[in-house]
Amino acid sequence: MTEHADVDDAVAQAMTVMPALAAAGCAGRARLMLAIADELHADGDAIVELADRETALGLPRLRGELARTVHQLRLFADVLSEGGYLEVTIDHADPDAAPAPRPDLRRMLVPVGPVAVYAASNFPLAFSVAGGDTTSALAAGCPVVVKVHSGHPHTSLRCGAAVRQGATVAGLPEDVLQLVQGRSAGVALVRHDDIQAVGFTGSVEGGRALYDIAVSRPRPIPFYGELGSINPFVVTPAAAAERAEEIGRGLAGSFTLGLGQFCTKPGLAFVPDGEDGERLIQALVGAAAPVPGGRMLTPAIRDSFHAGADERAAQPGVRTVLAAKGESKPRVLLTRAPTMPDMLLDECFGPLVVVVEYNGSAQLSAALNRVPGSLTATIHCGQKDEIVATVVRQLIDKVGRMVFNGYPTGVAVTWAMHHGGPYPSSTFPHHTSVGATAIRRFLRPVAYQDAPEAQLPLELREDNPLRLPRRVNGRYVPGA
Amino acid sequence: MTEHADVDDAVAQAMTVMPALAAAGCAGRARLMLAIADELHADGDAIVELADRETALGLPRLRGELARTVHQLRLFADVLSEGGYLEVTIDHADPDAAPAPRPDLRRMLVPVGPVAVYAASNFPLAFSVAGGDTTSALAAGCPVVVKVHSGHPHTSLRCGAAVRQGATVAGLPEDVLQLVQGRSAGVALVRHDDIQAVGFTGSVEGGRALYDIAVSRPRPIPFYGELGSINPFVVTPAAAAERAEEIGRGLAGSFTLGLGQFCTKPGLAFVPDGEDGERLIQALVGAAAPVPGGRMLTPAIRDSFHAGADERAAQPGVRTVLAAKGESKPRVLLTRAPTMPDMLLDECFGPLVVVVEYNGSAQLSAALNRVPGSLTATIHCGQKDEIVATVVRQLIDKVGRMVFNGYPTGVAVTWAMHHGGPYPSSTFPHHTSVGATAIRRFLRPVAYQDAPEAQLPLELREDNPLRLPRRVNGRYVPGA
Repeated sequence: MTEHADVDDAVAQAMTVMPALAAAGCAGRARLMLAIADELHADGDAIVELADRETALGLPRLRGELARTVHQLRLFADVLSEGGYLEVTIDHADPDAAPAPRPDLRRMLVPVGPVAVYAASNFPLAFSVAGGDTTSALAAGCPVVVKVHSGHPHTSLRCGAAVRQGATVAGLPEDVLQLVQGRSAGVALVRHDDIQAVGFTGSVEGGRALYDIAVSRPRPIPFYGELGSINPFVVTPAAAAERAEEIGRGLAGSFTLGLGQFCTKPGLAFVPDGEDGERLIQALVGAAAPVPGGRMLTPAIRDSFHAGADERAAQPGVRTVLAAKGESKPRVLLTRAPTMPDMLLDECFGPLVVVVEYNGSAQLSAALNRVPGSLTATIHCGQKDEIVATVVRQLIDKVGRMVFNGYPTGVAVTWAMHHGGPYPSSTFPHHTSVGATAIRRFLRPVAYQDAPEAQLPLELREDNPLRLPRRVNGRYVPGA
Repeated sequence: MTEHADVDDAVAQAMTVMPALAAAGCAGRARLMLAIADELHADGDAIVELADRETALGLPRLRGELARTVHQLRLFADVLSEGGYLEVTIDHADPDAAPAPRPDLRRMLVPVGPVAVYAASNFPLAFSVAGGDTTSALAAGCPVVVKVHSGHPHTSLRCGAAVRQGATVAGLPEDVLQLVQGRSAGVALVRHDDIQAVGFTGSVEGGRALYDIAVSRPRPIPFYGELGSINPFVVTPAAAAERAEEIGRGLAGSFTLGLGQFCTKPGLAFVPDGEDGERLIQALVGAAAPVPGGRMLTPAIRDSFHAGADERAAQPGVRTVLAAKGESKPRVLLTRAPTMPDMLLDECFGPLVVVVEYNGSAQLSAALNRVPGSLTATIHCGQKDEIVATVVRQLIDKVGRMVFNGYPTGVAVTWAMHHGGPYPSSTFPHHTSVGATAIRRFLRPVAYQDAPEAQLPLELREDNPLRLPRRVNGRYVPGA
C-alpha cells in the first residue's frame, strides 16, 4: 500500500495494464473472476480471522460475507460468459432507409478506464478491496485502485494479495488491482485526471465531499456513491392485527443485526397506533432487549452512534422505549407521525430503530412524504389489504428495492438485484452497486460506422465468432 | 411559454401528469410517439417554413431534419413496443441457493420523473422542443419541461403545439410537454427540486455552467449534456495516395455543411505531408472556395465564429489557405503536427477546418494524444494499411463513434447509434442523446422482493401478460 505521493504511480501503473485487461476479453476476464474467487476461498479462514480481529463482526457473519464475495465473483464470471452485458447492437447499412440512407453501425460497451474504489467500513470483504465495486470494474475491463478503509487495513492487504494472485493465475498483470491508503491519497485519487469513474460506499458526509471533487474536476467523472439510507419499514393495520409479535421480533432481529451496521438497516418503522401496534412494539422491545452490545466497527462509529442516539432521544415528542445499559446496546425510540422531528429522518448508523406511530392512512402518507431517498423500503401487509397499493406507489418513488413481508437486511447477489436509490442513499439512482448490472457503471458505448471487417473488434464481427447475444436490425438474436 | 416566475407552475404541472404517463404503459406511450409523429408530419410545411425564417438553415436541410424528427418518434414507438428497454429481470426464490437462500427478486426500469430539456440552436427540430431528448424522456414516461432556444421561439411554439396535440390525440394530458423561455427560467429549471434529470445540447460554456448547478444541488441530478466536439479526422498516407482528391472534396462538403453548424463537423484534419497531402489540400480548398457563406444561426454565433477563426489564424505556425471574403464563408487553416497550437484543439463552431500536416506515425500519434474527447473520429485508410489498427485504438479512447472512410456529419437515428463521447463532447460518455438507447438516461431500476403477485406491476408478473422479453434466472427469454 502506498501513501499520497504514490497515487500517481498507482494510476500510471493502472494505465499500463489496461490493454491486457481489455485484450483478455470476456473469456479471459471470466477466468480472472474465477481465479480470484478460488484464491479468496483458499485463503478464506485466514481472511475471516483477520477481518474479525479488525472489525469484531464475528466469525459466522464474516464467513457468510466471504461466501457472498466469492459468489459475487462467480456471478460476474457468468455475466461475462453470457456476454449480453456488452449490449452488442448491429444495424446493417441500408441505402433505401427512410428518412435517409443509413450506414453500417455497430455498437458495444467498452471499459471506461482506471476506476477508483473507496472501501466501506461495514463490509470488510463484500464492499471492500475484493468487493462488488472492484469485481464489477475488473469484469468490465477496468483496472482498479482501491483506497482501503482504515478500519481493516490488514484484511485489505490480504484480500488485495488474493486478487493480485488471482490475476497472476489468470495470466494477467497483478496490477489490475492496487491499494492506496490514507485520507490525502483518497483525495488525490478522485482528482487524478486518468481516473474515469469512482465507486464509493460510506457516509453521506464523506461521500458528498468526494462527489463534489469528482464533479468539479476540469473533466468531471461519474461518482457512484452509496451513502446513507433510513430504509422506511411500514406495517399496515391489517398486518399488525394478523401478526404483531412476529413482525416485532423480526424487526428486532433486522435492526440489531451486526450491531445495526448495515446500509439496509430498517431505521424508521411506521406502526399503527392502538392495541395491535402496542403488541408489536412490546415484541420488538422484548426481542431487542437481550441482544448483546459489543464493539462497533471503529471507535469513531461507536462515538457517533451514541451521540446520534442521545441527540435523537432528546428531540421533542420522542420517547425512549429501550435503552439498555452498555456499549452499543440496541435502542428503540418512539414518536408520532404528525410530530416526527426532522432529525429522525437521517440515518443513525448502529442498532437504533425509531418507531413512528400513525393513526390512519392520511397520517401515514403525510409522514412517508417526508422520508428521504433510501436503498430499500419494506411493507408488511395483510392478506386482503386495501391500502397496500397506495403505500407501495408512494414508497417506490423513494427507493431502489421494495421488500414485501420481509426484512431489508441481507442483499442477495443476483441478476435482478438492485442496490441503489434516490439521493442520499446513492448519488446516482440509475445504477446499482450489487448484482449483475453493477458492471454497467464502468462501461461506455462506442459505435463503429462502416468499419472494414478486419478493423472490427471480435465482438462486432458479422459472423459473431464469440457467439454473443446481440440485437441485429432491431431484433434480439440469442448467442451460443 | 412562461417566464421565470412560472417554472414552479410548469414543474408542479409536470408532477401532476406523471401518473398518467406512467399508467399509459409501453403501449400507451408508443401511441403517444406515433400521434406526435403524425402531428409534426401534418404540420410539417408550416414548421419547416417557420424554422427556415428563424434559423436560415434552408428548406431542404430542414425538411430532412423534420423527417428525421418524425422517424425518431417512430423508432421510439418500436422501442416501446418491443419492451426490451425495460430490462425486466426475474430471479425466482431459491431456498437452496448458495451462499444463502434467496428471495424472489424482480427488477425493471421506471421513469425518473420530470425532465428538463435545453434545446439546441443548430437543430431547431431534431434537438429542440420535439427532438431526441424530449422524445426519449416521454418514451421513458417522464414529463418534460423544455427551455426553448432563443434562436427559434416560433418554431418552438409550433412544435410544442404539435407535441401537446399529439398527447391529446393519444388520450394523455397535453402538459406532458411544457415550454419555458429565458435565461433565468433556464437556471430556475435546473435548480428545481422536482426535476430529476437534464438533457442539454449547446456550448461548453453554457453547458458546464448548468452542469455545475445540477451537480451542486442539495440533491444532485444527472446532467446529460452534449457540449463541444472537435471531431478529429485522420487521413493515412495510403488513403491519401489512393484518393487524395476524393477525400479533399468530401471533407470540404462535410465541414461546410449547414455553414459548419454541426456538432459532428470535422474540425481537425490530420493529413500526411508531402505530395499526396498537398493534392488533398488543394482539392479541399478548391471544393470549399465556391461554397457560399450566409446567415448563421444567430448574430452571436456569427460573431463568435469570425472572432474564433481570426484568433486561430493568428496563432504561431498557422497559415490561412482559404479565407474567402464575405460573411461566414469557409475557412481552411494549416498547421504542422509537432507545433500545433493548443487553441486549435477547441471547437470553432462554423465553417472552419484546421488541416494538421504530419510526418510519419509517431508525429500523428503524438498529435492525436492531445485531442480532447469528441463525439466522433474519422479515419480514411487504404486497402492494406498497416497503421489503421493503432490509430483506431488511439481514437476509440477519445470518442463515441468511429467512422471509417466517410464523414461524421449526418447522424443516423437507429438502434446502434451512439452520440456521446468523453468530456467535453458530453458530460457523461456512458449515455447517448441519439438512437434507441437514449431512453436509458431517464430511467432507474427498481427491484421488488417477494411481492405478492397482485402487487406487482404488469411488467413483472409471472405470467408475463405484456409479453415482454425478459431475463429469468439469468437466461434471456424472448417476448411476444
